[in-house]
Amino acid sequence: MKRKGILIVVSGFSGAGKGTLMKRLVSDYENYALSVSMTTRNPRPGEVSGREYFFVSREEFEKQIAENGLVEYASYCDNYYGTPKAYVEEQLEKGKDVILEIEIQGALKVKKQFPEALLLFVMPPNAQELRRRLEGRGTETKEVIDKRLKRAAEEAEGIEEYDYIVINDDLEECVRHMHSVIMAAHDTPDRCGDLIEKMRKELEAFAK
Amino acid sequence: MKRKGILIVVSGFSGAGKGTLMKRLVSDYENYALSVSMTTRNPRPGEVSGREYFFVSREEFEKQIAENGLVEYASYCDNYYGTPKAYVEEQLEKGKDVILEIEIQGALKVKKQFPEALLLFVMPPNAQELRRRLEGRGTETKEVIDKRLKRAAEEAEGIEEYDYIVINDDLEECVRHMHSVIMAAHDTPDRCGDLIEKMRKELEAFAK
Repeated sequence: MKRKGILIVVSGFSGAGKGTLMKRLVSDYENYALSVSMTTRNPRPGEVSGREYFFVSREEFEKQIAENGLVEYASYCDNYYGTPKAYVEEQLEKGKDVILEIEIQGALKVKKQFPEALLLFVMPPNAQELRRRLEGRGTETKEVIDKRLKRAAEEAEGIEEYDYIVINDDLEECVRHMHSVIMAAHDTPDRCGDLIEKMRKELEAFAK
Repeated sequence: MKRKGILIVVSGFSGAGKGTLMKRLVSDYENYALSVSMTTRNPRPGEVSGREYFFVSREEFEKQIAENGLVEYASYCDNYYGTPKAYVEEQLEKGKDVILEIEIQGALKVKKQFPEALLLFVMPPNAQELRRRLEGRGTETKEVIDKRLKRAAEEAEGIEEYDYIVINDDLEECVRHMHSVIMAAHDTPDRCGDLIEKMRKELEAFAK
């Protein structure tokens, strides 16, 4: 029986290591595909449409909104950013687990359209470590770091909406554990409907 | 932060391999404890109270019922069988994941008293394989096997009440996968309340 993919939404504090984890999942295992967002902003040098983003016109984006072609979208600095539904569904049908990085408001919108989506929240082991990582980048001012910590405090309010907390302490261990959590999620009854139905029919046939 | 154990309820069709899986979890990993049931039946030669069962008198068992000292209990062939709450709670407090094998009615009673319990349903990969395993034992009459298959068809009605389906195809793989599922379950927000609370407090302190 062919197994359908799961839509995986990854959120977490800035500095929790979401990006690295997602890249590692895709490179270490064969079952993942990264969702490619659609945007109206102009491509930067080297960016390729369909790889970094699907680059489209404002008209095209608004047509997608009108036709309910996006899983979620938001507007930022006068540009639209969104997740094309067709691409996600195509990958899921192929059996790929599609990973989508998005903040909490977007995550909840996704869950509404895809109730079987798996919502993961990535955290460092403690707040001191989060601060250390933000400072360690060495590229941000104290003001920016403080703003991010404040934003983290706000985001922490929504953690209960997620299915799993992923603690990113040791990267290698975290990648393996995150993969385990996703593999386990394939085996919840709501995601195994076909298998359960098949087993029931076979057992009923025996019982006759 | 010390992690509390999870109460794990294992159900599944007769012939699905529950007993073997549970024994392997306990022997392969250090985090498990098997729940020991209480019964009013007489010990058989070689059985030790506190190992196979806690053997008690009818009066003692009924006292436990009256004092709400059992997670669940049932009566079978004029004897009581039940799960002592004190033993389970003691092991959970120690951080042990306590495994309890029980059928669906009992499993749902446990879930009521321990909402954070994890309910696992063990299945063979398909019904033909279940039949083959039941026949393969070679110890049962056709009548008994048919009865078990019929019972399996009835039990299959309740699968959606469980948190995870565990497919027992290859034993080694299944033990590892079952362990992964349980490790993942430790990281749901409802089981990480203390960790989330701690993170929130620390972040709030930074944000001040």
